[in-house]
Amino acid sequence: MNYHSTKHNFNMNSPAPLNQIRVVLSHTSHPGNIGAAARAMKTMGLSQLVLLNPKKFPHPDADDRATGAVDLLERAQVCAQLDDALQSCVLVAGVTARRRDLSHRMVSVREGAQQLVQESSVGPVALLFGTEMSGLTNAELDKCQLLITIPANPEFSSLNLASAVQIVAYELRMATALGTFIDANDQEPATFEQAEYFYAHLEKVIIDINFLDPDNPKRMMQRLRRLFARARLEKNEVDILRGILSMIEQKTR
Amino acid sequence: MNYHSTKHNFNMNSPAPLNQIRVVLSHTSHPGNIGAAARAMKTMGLSQLVLLNPKKFPHPDADDRATGAVDLLERAQVCAQLDDALQSCVLVAGVTARRRDLSHRMVSVREGAQQLVQESSVGPVALLFGTEMSGLTNAELDKCQLLITIPANPEFSSLNLASAVQIVAYELRMATALGTFIDANDQEPATFEQAEYFYAHLEKVIIDINFLDPDNPKRMMQRLRRLFARARLEKNEVDILRGILSMIEQKTR
Repeated sequence: MNYHSTKHNFNMNSPAPLNQIRVVLSHTSHPGNIGAAARAMKTMGLSQLVLLNPKKFPHPDADDRATGAVDLLERAQVCAQLDDALQSCVLVAGVTARRRDLSHRMVSVREGAQQLVQESSVGPVALLFGTEMSGLTNAELDKCQLLITIPANPEFSSLNLASAVQIVAYELRMATALGTFIDANDQEPATFEQAEYFYAHLEKVIIDINFLDPDNPKRMMQRLRRLFARARLEKNEVDILRGILSMIEQKTR
Repeated sequence: MNYHSTKHNFNMNSPAPLNQIRVVLSHTSHPGNIGAAARAMKTMGLSQLVLLNPKKFPHPDADDRATGAVDLLERAQVCAQLDDALQSCVLVAGVTARRRDLSHRMVSVREGAQQLVQESSVGPVALLFGTEMSGLTNAELDKCQLLITIPANPEFSSLNLASAVQIVAYELRMATALGTFIDANDQEPATFEQAEYFYAHLEKVIIDINFLDPDNPKRMMQRLRRLFARARLEKNEVDILRGILSMIEQKTR
């Protein structure tokens, strides 16, 4: 009974999952694109806009292109640090057209939207969009647990930023309406901060034991991050791993 | 035989179905929207643009917003009559947010895209988009055999014209096999044995450092196995992890 009413609520009209989904636009050059992205979000029922170091914002061009979605711009959170933009998120997905050499998990926007909607029942999730010209930086990619790619014409894959936001937002709405909501895992996922503390602890220990040479790191931390990102660490697993790291510190002191 | 070879060709790489799909923009007010629509089309592999009585075209704003899709604008067919725009089409689908009182068949954009791609193997098909302000006229709707609607926020369903084109074009691409995304991860996965050697090594080390009590193991190894199993370890990652374990052994000897 309780299950049914919850499910019904979710499937039919509850905007709750979409309200848990944050769109983070990093270092956007053109304020018009910010406005168009806000409009794209609102048409699909998304409302949480975070701007990481926008070049020009607020700006009349943003308001012009937002039309009836100016309220999203007014409530947008403006951040100077990526970590602030991703605070508390249980899943961070980067949207990219680029192929990565290292083994980030890459999924289509349809599959990624389903995962984001699923995780949004647990806590806030973030979608990270890079700049118009060059997309996500390597440092930004390192913070993502999932990469989402939008199928496109290989001869002309240059989607406008707001168009990319529009497609992702559309698939997110479709993922909720379709009700493909299955909570298969009742373990609490690690938050962004918990994972970051673990990575910092891991890096310190592998330097201490002379495995990692801080003067010649050779992308070792990126490799380790990608491994654990694929696993989608749970909170209790972070506790276990950090317990192991603490014991290594004691024994090698 | 014939069926199979056609199907194979279609699935693998033939862009033919998308070339049979015409986008007809009726009485568009802003030339910038025509350019943005052309860009949206090209990113998804559509190329046939038809403009029915555009208010201003050609226009520098159209070229600006088209960026690398100016070739579609140059090849666009400009018509004065709707019937000319729809010439030879075996299926005409109108894109609308409005509910119709008459008994037009209305489908979601996902279902509509599948039908259009299917019919495009028979002959040209058309997608008709109305003006920015008022959508399709009744006379235009009368020419449609199918109405396609884009799911949207009922409180703010005002999609930009180019955004609507973008979503429809994306679903058309997804409806062909071109949208099928295969994650080509060329990293060599760890074999069963490599993973097992790693787990044995990990168990030995966490016993050595007194993290794991072998007399009271509390399912610790199962938890760790589950974590790494989710990550689907690669061979080079097993090498890294075992390298770390070896350094811990050296330092705690």
